[in-house]
Amino acid sequence: MSVIAELSIFPLDKGVSLSPYVARAVHIVQQSGLAHEFGPMGTCIEGEWDTVMQTVTACFQDLAQDCTRISLSLKIDYVQGKTGRLQSKVASVQERLS
Amino acid sequence: MSVIAELSIFPLDKGVSLSPYVARAVHIVQQSGLAHEFGPMGTCIEGEWDTVMQTVTACFQDLAQDCTRISLSLKIDYVQGKTGRLQSKVASVQERLS
Amino acid sequence: MSVIAELSIFPLDKGVSLSPYVARAVHIVQQSGLAHEFGPMGTCIEGEWDTVMQTVTACFQDLAQDCTRISLSLKIDYVQGKTGRLQSKVASVQERLS
Amino acid sequence: MSVIAELSIFPLDKGVSLSPYVARAVHIVQQSGLAHEFGPMGTCIEGEWDTVMQTVTACFQDLAQDCTRISLSLKIDYVQGKTGRLQSKVASVQERLS
Repeated sequence: MSVIAELSIFPLDKGVSLSPYVARAVHIVQQSGLAHEFGPMGTCIEGEWDTVMQTVTACFQDLAQDCTRISLSLKIDYVQGKTGRLQSKVASVQERLS
Repeated sequence: MSVIAELSIFPLDKGVSLSPYVARAVHIVQQSGLAHEFGPMGTCIEGEWDTVMQTVTACFQDLAQDCTRISLSLKIDYVQGKTGRLQSKVASVQERLS
Repeated sequence: MSVIAELSIFPLDKGVSLSPYVARAVHIVQQSGLAHEFGPMGTCIEGEWDTVMQTVTACFQDLAQDCTRISLSLKIDYVQGKTGRLQSKVASVQERLS
Repeated sequence: MSVIAELSIFPLDKGVSLSPYVARAVHIVQQSGLAHEFGPMGTCIEGEWDTVMQTVTACFQDLAQDCTRISLSLKIDYVQGKTGRLQSKVASVQERLS
């Protein structure tokens, strides 16, 4: 069951410069080997539900080592039997715009 | 690592009457034994990260049995060393309002 | 066009005790006169799109007076021609659970 | 007060092929002249609060013309006195990863 999950995670006890913490999460996503796309408001990750959730858990556990309050949001889109949707979703909208 | 997770899950291939599907997810949350609060836009679940994620996974897998497209959103709030926050978060705001 | 909007808003530059800031936003929602329900992860507000958005804007502008970084999330559910859904959405799920 | 807003909007009464509706919203964002970035799970829009909200409202009103149920989510990040953050947020994380 392949899904796209958009992950946003940041600490609330470290002031307003969040990039060191976001970078740690993005690094974990990169190491996972899953297809992903990093953007201004979150990182989209595509893969099997279990693998994606393991990666999200790894990001959370990493920040929880030194952060006392964490906000995490996850938005998931599942379509039965489809993969490669990080590209195809964008492409199907762009076709209609051109 | 106790968290509050607000879960919203619904199919996109079943028309606009979503309550049968929402009820299936809420039933799974109830059966989990975790502290929870069901509201108009989602269900807040409190518990250890792993248990909460297992429950979210069970909700997803249940709907994926007969739904071909599913939208799921999860918003998580973690504070180190705190539990019972489904009540205490609301209470600490209400004190300031009275 | 009546909607339900779930609003979550908090500063990122004020440390981990967010209840003073959440209370300011909830107070503004209360003063708006709109139907609302305050919960552990956000406040659900029901009303016409424009009125709801004015209230959300008032919450943001209030916090922006003294907060240098703000995170806001809004999740909206619109059903054509329906009102009173803060109650009816919850009721229609609960009927199926009993 | 410049913000980044990530907008996701889709109907629930039109089946699982959402790209025609997403394209209508993205087209409205393009016509707004605001800085934006279109991705697999939403469109990030940067601009003054009021202008961004007018654009979000225009997207909603457009879909509400022929959709009977709409789901919309908006995630906003505000930093006092900063603009050009669609680029700078991504760049500051990427520097740390290289």
